[in-house]
Amino acid sequence: MSTDVTVLGLGPMGSALAGAFVAAGHRTTVWNRTPGKAEALVRRGAVEAESAGEALGASPLTVVSLSTYEAVRDVLRPVAGELAGRALVNLTSGPPVCAREMDAWAGQAGAHYLDGVVMTTPSGIGSRDFLQLYAGSATAFERHRETLAALGDATYVGTDTALSSVYDTTLLCQMWSTLTGWLHSVVLIGAEGPGGNVTAAEYTEVANRWMDTVRFFMSTYAAQVDSGEYPSGDFPLDLHRSTMEILTHASELRGADTGMPKLFRALTERAIAAGHGNDSYARLVEFVRREGRPGATLP
Amino acid sequence: MSTDVTVLGLGPMGSALAGAFVAAGHRTTVWNRTPGKAEALVRRGAVEAESAGEALGASPLTVVSLSTYEAVRDVLRPVAGELAGRALVNLTSGPPVCAREMDAWAGQAGAHYLDGVVMTTPSGIGSRDFLQLYAGSATAFERHRETLAALGDATYVGTDTALSSVYDTTLLCQMWSTLTGWLHSVVLIGAEGPGGNVTAAEYTEVANRWMDTVRFFMSTYAAQVDSGEYPSGDFPLDLHRSTMEILTHASELRGADTGMPKLFRALTERAIAAGHGNDSYARLVEFVRREGRPGATLP
Repeated sequence: MSTDVTVLGLGPMGSALAGAFVAAGHRTTVWNRTPGKAEALVRRGAVEAESAGEALGASPLTVVSLSTYEAVRDVLRPVAGELAGRALVNLTSGPPVCAREMDAWAGQAGAHYLDGVVMTTPSGIGSRDFLQLYAGSATAFERHRETLAALGDATYVGTDTALSSVYDTTLLCQMWSTLTGWLHSVVLIGAEGPGGNVTAAEYTEVANRWMDTVRFFMSTYAAQVDSGEYPSGDFPLDLHRSTMEILTHASELRGADTGMPKLFRALTERAIAAGHGNDSYARLVEFVRREGRPGATLP
Repeated sequence: MSTDVTVLGLGPMGSALAGAFVAAGHRTTVWNRTPGKAEALVRRGAVEAESAGEALGASPLTVVSLSTYEAVRDVLRPVAGELAGRALVNLTSGPPVCAREMDAWAGQAGAHYLDGVVMTTPSGIGSRDFLQLYAGSATAFERHRETLAALGDATYVGTDTALSSVYDTTLLCQMWSTLTGWLHSVVLIGAEGPGGNVTAAEYTEVANRWMDTVRFFMSTYAAQVDSGEYPSGDFPLDLHRSTMEILTHASELRGADTGMPKLFRALTERAIAAGHGNDSYARLVEFVRREGRPGATLP
């Protein structure tokens, strides 16, 4: 059975979302506050609603993609009566607190609310290679996960609707650290600029295989963080520090910015100074968190 | 046909290497400067040589794992006459310049020389999940790649023997950036310490899937670095900067160290100030490299 779905908001992202639903064979109703955005979608088979209320009423599942949470509230408040019993998936970007407020409001209106983030740009919508994260009503997610899978790799992260935007920020942090390390590595290997003997593509093929090992470390260290025990096996922080010195030296020789190597080394040295030289790299989690703030509530 | 192989040096790494060759069914000759290290290997089927020369003479392929390049020179100089026509694979850690010196010396002795690095600790030897990188004689690598595959994922990176240790440092840089970003993310998501609502294991499962997307970016950006053109599609540096501000703010709220987010942001802002706000993240490579040092020779 193919579920009918409504998309509110036809900016670049909303249009991409609606297009993916259409492509997956769903009866897709679309609506935009200002007219003229639906034409291409209608030609492909989407139905344009005359009002937000009509659009909401057309499907058991509505996906919202607007510029701000304020815009979402402006659009939904007048049609709250249509929400009871329906699933409302909000993919608008915003801070965690807005997700929780929207969750409370939608719950009062009787909707099953999910707050989501799309971990790609509009051009990546519809590919299973990209994550979409959903937090909130487990009922709504289970009921509509197959439909949402038309957009990408649909992943449920928990009942707290703040989690989707927290994950968003967190995964971007993970991305920037990896990419910035990659940029540094490209400079170190000599791929950038004239006279390099390794191309960035050659280096990156090896680096991408190496990332499998790094993922293995992340999984191993995750269990350590959860248990609070940091056995190092044969790769303790003392050994990390001595190889970090080689990295800093190589960065200087290559004319690469030393900010990043120095940041790792300072963090590692703080942990070693506190007596953790024989622990694994995961022990550093205690030094990334500034003292006095453990367990603070989500922002 | 199973190639005979010799291992010189039976410290923790050398013993692991010899053990992997024995396990893969190779006739394995072992030797160590100080006696008493070979017993466990001999029980498993290895042959202990009486001297380094006898060990070298026993196999067409010799793998060396000693504490320093100086130790390698001390061991090999007296037996240089045995090297002609044989493959010599040096897995001893050291700076690029030592690899090149050893390459020149081994070449004069008539050996086919490979300088390698093992991207794991002794406990990971024998698993195809871990990379080993080899640089130098393509002939030696092609002839012995199947034998070397007993140690792990054997990868040839180029003829310049300096490359293996440059790759080593570079991939460790990649690892530390990713792991430090991961630690930061674990703190942001609230997994560490008491009161967290997401475990590190839960977060890391999602993060490891996200890393596939990040690898896709790395491959895309590698082609950009090689071409010197940085089209951003729908994710320009201006957009990175605004989301980085959210990350810095979230880090402050969570009590996480802000050194890393500020480092990304400063780098991004330098590129934007230079007029690259509409370019992709890969443009930052020009700002990681300090000015005046493009194309410097390998350290």
